[in-house]
Amino acid sequence: MHNLPLNGITVLEFSQYLSGPVAGLRLADFGARVIKIERPGKGDACRQLPIKNLWTDDNTLLFHTINRNKESFTADLKSETDLEIVRKLIGMADVVTHNFRPGVMERAGLGAEEVMKLNPGIIYAEISGYGKTGPWKNLPGQDLLVQSMSGLVYTSGNAGDHPVPFGLSIADSICGNQLVQAILAALIRRHKTGKGAHIEMSLMESVLDFQFELLTTYFASGKLPQRSEMSNGHPLLASPYGTYETADGFIAIAMVNLHQLALAIDCPALYAYRQEDAFIHRDEIKQLLAEHMVKRGTDWWLEKLHRQDIWAMAVLDWKELQQHPAYRFVQMEQQVVTGEGKKIITTRCPVRINGERLTSEKAAPQLGEHTGSIIKEFQNTSKQAPSGEFLTEAI
Amino acid sequence: MHNLPLNGITVLEFSQYLSGPVAGLRLADFGARVIKIERPGKGDACRQLPIKNLWTDDNTLLFHTINRNKESFTADLKSETDLEIVRKLIGMADVVTHNFRPGVMERAGLGAEEVMKLNPGIIYAEISGYGKTGPWKNLPGQDLLVQSMSGLVYTSGNAGDHPVPFGLSIADSICGNQLVQAILAALIRRHKTGKGAHIEMSLMESVLDFQFELLTTYFASGKLPQRSEMSNGHPLLASPYGTYETADGFIAIAMVNLHQLALAIDCPALYAYRQEDAFIHRDEIKQLLAEHMVKRGTDWWLEKLHRQDIWAMAVLDWKELQQHPAYRFVQMEQQVVTGEGKKIITTRCPVRINGERLTSEKAAPQLGEHTGSIIKEFQNTSKQAPSGEFLTEAI
Repeated sequence: MHNLPLNGITVLEFSQYLSGPVAGLRLADFGARVIKIERPGKGDACRQLPIKNLWTDDNTLLFHTINRNKESFTADLKSETDLEIVRKLIGMADVVTHNFRPGVMERAGLGAEEVMKLNPGIIYAEISGYGKTGPWKNLPGQDLLVQSMSGLVYTSGNAGDHPVPFGLSIADSICGNQLVQAILAALIRRHKTGKGAHIEMSLMESVLDFQFELLTTYFASGKLPQRSEMSNGHPLLASPYGTYETADGFIAIAMVNLHQLALAIDCPALYAYRQEDAFIHRDEIKQLLAEHMVKRGTDWWLEKLHRQDIWAMAVLDWKELQQHPAYRFVQMEQQVVTGEGKKIITTRCPVRINGERLTSEKAAPQLGEHTGSIIKEFQNTSKQAPSGEFLTEAI
Repeated sequence: MHNLPLNGITVLEFSQYLSGPVAGLRLADFGARVIKIERPGKGDACRQLPIKNLWTDDNTLLFHTINRNKESFTADLKSETDLEIVRKLIGMADVVTHNFRPGVMERAGLGAEEVMKLNPGIIYAEISGYGKTGPWKNLPGQDLLVQSMSGLVYTSGNAGDHPVPFGLSIADSICGNQLVQAILAALIRRHKTGKGAHIEMSLMESVLDFQFELLTTYFASGKLPQRSEMSNGHPLLASPYGTYETADGFIAIAMVNLHQLALAIDCPALYAYRQEDAFIHRDEIKQLLAEHMVKRGTDWWLEKLHRQDIWAMAVLDWKELQQHPAYRFVQMEQQVVTGEGKKIITTRCPVRINGERLTSEKAAPQLGEHTGSIIKEFQNTSKQAPSGEFLTEAI
């Protein structure tokens, strides 16, 4: 679309792996120019991180997924020559992001304080594992580990199960998404004050925020979450909230009135329970329901449940989802084409503005693909319009 | 803190339950004035939605958790008198949010088109379950149901398990967080163009975006995710990624080199596997590791693993987390005091700006608490400084 919200904004992404780069991906989809600053030779470690051994060109599919719509500039942060150039880029940028362990950027002379001296209007946004102080500060800030330390792994699965992690990188995703919020808020603040900002987030704080409903309940009750013995959908919600096997698949049932449900699915045994029993006797009720639902197929039940406007839907896997007639209305797929002409189907930005979906065909960059052109561009810019103390010399 | 990024921004929140209100909560924490527009008598349905039957004053703890730091204005959207006032508020607001089913706001004359006619600079942001077109448009857009239809429930738990939902409201949370991104991006766009924007999101699109790594892999391979038989941490990641029982608890182990791990934990049997086997033989390796890890306590293992800088941490529940000496450095708890003097401990906004954590003691409003004062305020404003066609009459 024309007039993307962040047109004109330049982001220098020192981030690697997922949490920082997923923030850069959203900023790019909103129209920002995102330049990855990568170490020569290897670049973002994610370039080599395979998932199920899927590679495209020299990079893994994972790297392409997270880094489409960006540019790549190589710089060795231990080389003074390279640092000189990086400092000039900082002088022209609006946002810097990084997710190194505490101390790494500072040792390169690129900590928040130094960078904000170079460019007082910059938004310096950093992600750590557990914050930059305290006993955890140097421990590995990795997604599964943060999930495991935050209590989150005791919310999914059933009572008899071991701790059950969320089966994708929730800490990285949530924190990266919240970093976007903070960066955009700081850009709005800069419009009014002219001042940059130093944003600090951590995976741990994001995952605790994400559990805000459950934690507030825990702070008030002092009781740890009890997953139900079967069909747990949420440790604090009453029966029947969860998924149930049917004769030909699975069905999900959310909050419902028990007697309405009993009527809709013709299950007289359910009438024995009052609505107040739905939490206290949730295991019995879920058991009873499980025995009933398995007798008929998912569509049979859905027809009866939807007729009463009861909150239930089929459980679909990705294949079933993709083949469903309604899926094409969602239009979440988009194609990007790599420099070598390889086509990758991925998802788009989930936001629509004025009826237009935000899509971009630009693939992830090869390592250092834009180093030369960016240097030239800034040489020209600084010759034509020296606008700031770090642009008075050509770079 | 002074100079909160969104000071001066007014949000009218027609949203209920979680997805829309969680967006309002973040906007409020960033400094916006968030006014809930609620129906007289009952208000936001979440006021009556108990979790584990915890209530404070007339409202549930859940409502207090999601709606602190907001104001409440009651209006009957079926009354022309009330609508007249609401339209005047719209004339002075910057953002409108709602998460009604498609058609509800339109029937009240408050669809995007009408509202943007009243105030061309407004950001009109709406959340639906599955988008506003297609066969799913009128189906219940509820968190568990969207999870179940999106394939997400096949990522957690082990191979033999039924579909396992994430044990909290992930669809609502993710979508609400992304709505904040879109609203802030649109506010930045308005600074440049003077124009408002119509933002549309859906729970389904957000949950698909959230699975972008897994879906891109599925699009390329055509293979559905296979959870491991035990200790599944992520269906696409190699062993040992997952949680393991120890002699006195559980431990989480993330991506590691198998031979480094074998050395660190003194497990010669692991040497039989090459790194390339880590995915193909993940079930065997996980089984072998499970039998080994259960022999010693968590701290014993952590000491050995961290000495080799191997990515592992203890699994903690909320009680263990809260009692850990490092927890106080995170400082995620804050207290709010209700109008009736009741104290509630909840979490704060996870963002830090210039070293300051964003906290707010303001509790959730009583239904209609600010109706009178807001009417008075706008009467005065419109008398003193009529600034727009909808402020020329006193309201």
